[in-house]
Amino acid sequence: MNKDLAISELTERFGTKLNVSTADREQHGQDESSHAVRLPDAVLYPTTTQEVADAVQICARNRMPIIPFGAGTSLEGHITAPHGGVSIDLSMMNRILAVHEADMDVRVQPGVTRQMLNTHLRDKGLFFPVDPGAECTLGGMVATRASGTNAVRYGTMREQVLSLKVVTATGEIIETGNRARKSAAGYDLTHLFVGSEGTLGIVTEMSLRVYGRPEKLMAGVCHFPSLQAAIDTVIATIQMGLPVARIELLDELSIRAVNSYSGLKHREAPTLFLEFHGATEAVDAEVHTFSTMAAEAGGSEIQFADHQEDINKLWHARHQLYYATRAMAPGKHIMTTDVCVPISRLGDCMLATRRDMDESPITGTMLGHVGDGNFHTILLADPNSLGEMRALEELHDRMVTRAIEMGGTCTGEHGIGIGKQKYLEMEKGPAVHLMRQIKAALDPIGIMNPGKLLPGMEAGE
Amino acid sequence: MNKDLAISELTERFGTKLNVSTADREQHGQDESSHAVRLPDAVLYPTTTQEVADAVQICARNRMPIIPFGAGTSLEGHITAPHGGVSIDLSMMNRILAVHEADMDVRVQPGVTRQMLNTHLRDKGLFFPVDPGAECTLGGMVATRASGTNAVRYGTMREQVLSLKVVTATGEIIETGNRARKSAAGYDLTHLFVGSEGTLGIVTEMSLRVYGRPEKLMAGVCHFPSLQAAIDTVIATIQMGLPVARIELLDELSIRAVNSYSGLKHREAPTLFLEFHGATEAVDAEVHTFSTMAAEAGGSEIQFADHQEDINKLWHARHQLYYATRAMAPGKHIMTTDVCVPISRLGDCMLATRRDMDESPITGTMLGHVGDGNFHTILLADPNSLGEMRALEELHDRMVTRAIEMGGTCTGEHGIGIGKQKYLEMEKGPAVHLMRQIKAALDPIGIMNPGKLLPGMEAGE
Repeated sequence: MNKDLAISELTERFGTKLNVSTADREQHGQDESSHAVRLPDAVLYPTTTQEVADAVQICARNRMPIIPFGAGTSLEGHITAPHGGVSIDLSMMNRILAVHEADMDVRVQPGVTRQMLNTHLRDKGLFFPVDPGAECTLGGMVATRASGTNAVRYGTMREQVLSLKVVTATGEIIETGNRARKSAAGYDLTHLFVGSEGTLGIVTEMSLRVYGRPEKLMAGVCHFPSLQAAIDTVIATIQMGLPVARIELLDELSIRAVNSYSGLKHREAPTLFLEFHGATEAVDAEVHTFSTMAAEAGGSEIQFADHQEDINKLWHARHQLYYATRAMAPGKHIMTTDVCVPISRLGDCMLATRRDMDESPITGTMLGHVGDGNFHTILLADPNSLGEMRALEELHDRMVTRAIEMGGTCTGEHGIGIGKQKYLEMEKGPAVHLMRQIKAALDPIGIMNPGKLLPGMEAGE
Repeated sequence: MNKDLAISELTERFGTKLNVSTADREQHGQDESSHAVRLPDAVLYPTTTQEVADAVQICARNRMPIIPFGAGTSLEGHITAPHGGVSIDLSMMNRILAVHEADMDVRVQPGVTRQMLNTHLRDKGLFFPVDPGAECTLGGMVATRASGTNAVRYGTMREQVLSLKVVTATGEIIETGNRARKSAAGYDLTHLFVGSEGTLGIVTEMSLRVYGRPEKLMAGVCHFPSLQAAIDTVIATIQMGLPVARIELLDELSIRAVNSYSGLKHREAPTLFLEFHGATEAVDAEVHTFSTMAAEAGGSEIQFADHQEDINKLWHARHQLYYATRAMAPGKHIMTTDVCVPISRLGDCMLATRRDMDESPITGTMLGHVGDGNFHTILLADPNSLGEMRALEELHDRMVTRAIEMGGTCTGEHGIGIGKQKYLEMEKGPAVHLMRQIKAALDPIGIMNPGKLLPGMEAGE
């Protein structure tokens, strides 16, 4: 690796678009997790695909690591720079290039956030459904195969990406697909890049599916006497094929955190946050069916949000849960983790995890995109207590191992990053060997986000 | 390559499961298209994943090509053996291993056909939606990323596959995923194998999504005064987000072929074959909305099939169209091709193609899974007429080129095989280079279905 030469060539090519100030480097070395921070040597703010390609070529010549950067909101250490290198911050590439209303797709640059896109689409009667908690970029969401509360109905980023423009690890510019809704033409490069965490190339444009806003939308909350009762209701809902748009479970402590952080007054009980989308008659019928099932499990009547403003407030509070939990114990080490299991195992997995948390010294909230079988814990430990920190690690390890043993995955939506590499190996076994072969083929000198996703793969220094 | 040694080692390992008879080889060298036939040197009928792995290892040691074989119903020459080798026929691996009703997924071997699976699921209230025309195997459908009439509502094979057990080109056994509905764990190997046409490995088991049978199902046909009117209705249906389960367009000549082949009496006019799935009220509302739109375009009232038997007959006739067209002119060379474009371009693309067909000496039917923007032509030419054969090639070339120029793909569901390699390059440009790198990484000696999918890649002899 020749860092100095790389930086001098980048400076010559990019001038003030390259920044080596400590403040900038610090902003780009740490995501929202508590994973170890390592700073990049420089931060580059490209504005075009060609600039990204030029930067990659300069870095490739000098074996300089590249860390693609969106909004820095990831949770598994994806943007830290264990080998130094250049953080390529794509936030300046934030233009919405086209909205094809007739085809219900859009073309955007990677620095566009989901909120920007939805604001732009609002008066066209369209929306983009994938909604992780953070104010993240669509590029980052592609990189981590992100998901959110609407995935039970609309799918994750995997289902929304039609095509990607990618700068490869050798600085070539390719387009992985096109705007046709389906294709049997060759290897599915689009889905290879979705979820590759910046380790195979840099996405510089993307075509995404968007959806018509439903005729009717009803959102509300439903309280339950126990976690078991809430989960049983979720499982029954999914198994009967009721097309809920959102069905989110928050445990008692989550509700307490949300109430305190957002000044709300939800009853402190296991609660489902719900949303139904569709034609008026269909939504009314779905609400009726759901209410009957919920009542049988001891659930309350659904308290509906009456106005769009109340609906927004409801979901905003839900999305703030990570920050709300953190605010319960300022200064504590925070770990958030997510797993996903087949829906039939969701009850067993969540209840065993909750029991395990209750029996440990660790405070934590549990919540989930439960319609997918996906749930999270947000765990707090005193960084000065060796006992708490060890208990935290063990709790995490048991939760992830339990999910894998139940036929699930070590992460439903956060990704591997540096935090879950050992679980990738546990879950995928010899398939990780193929991932390594693909990485070596597409990034032969190992400059793309080295040290992430694949266990035991280092930068090719 | 050491063919004799490979065959002697395979004979020693597999005994009578290996067959070198000319009859068997001939059955395995030709699919349902008119592509050039080349026979494999032998046919193997494995019954377990381990047997497949052993066979691959023997072939790899001797650099012997392997051609995975399902039912032989593909349309782009996928199963021909341009370099000889062993056809691995997976039809004996036809067990349904598990039905997880609570999770709505199944585990099957690759030789199970979609019809077998649906027969097995019927009394459980479940069904598998993907339905190419032929009596094909689910393994073949994974390999070609197959689709069919229900894709507009339920998606293609891409959307149904949760995980694959694969024997890699080096004889390793891997599992690409698990039964969780979503995962952010590592590279998406599942989707890399879906559509890889047997060029990266052999699928020996798969987990697939299945769906609850709808409460109400209504199927019928609607005639239109012109192709334009029918297409306009389709585009309006999709753009308004009406969740039709099936919307298939047959042109006038297609109806004539179907009537003649299946003894039916449909009016010989451009026709939509339709199906609506859902709760009773929702289906009734959808039918009403659709009927209103169709009437505005001059469409007839929908003639509904009243009984399940009539519905089956309707769709059976639709699925027979390839054979029905072939029967219009026995002995003629038949070429069937498919393209897929963004829905906003479907009218332009289909009408230009129909005009082009009308102006050429070639007879052909045109039909489509039009809700996806996907349509087919089935073209007949006299193999003894140089003029007709040349016109056929030119017609095909213009159709595919037109679709690519309109932002579409050279194949929506048939795949590349040997028939569409030049169009893969036209459509994907430098992205084909990445496909080659992946192929070289995962099949370094080039034994997996050599000569297919990737242009200019030969067996590593």
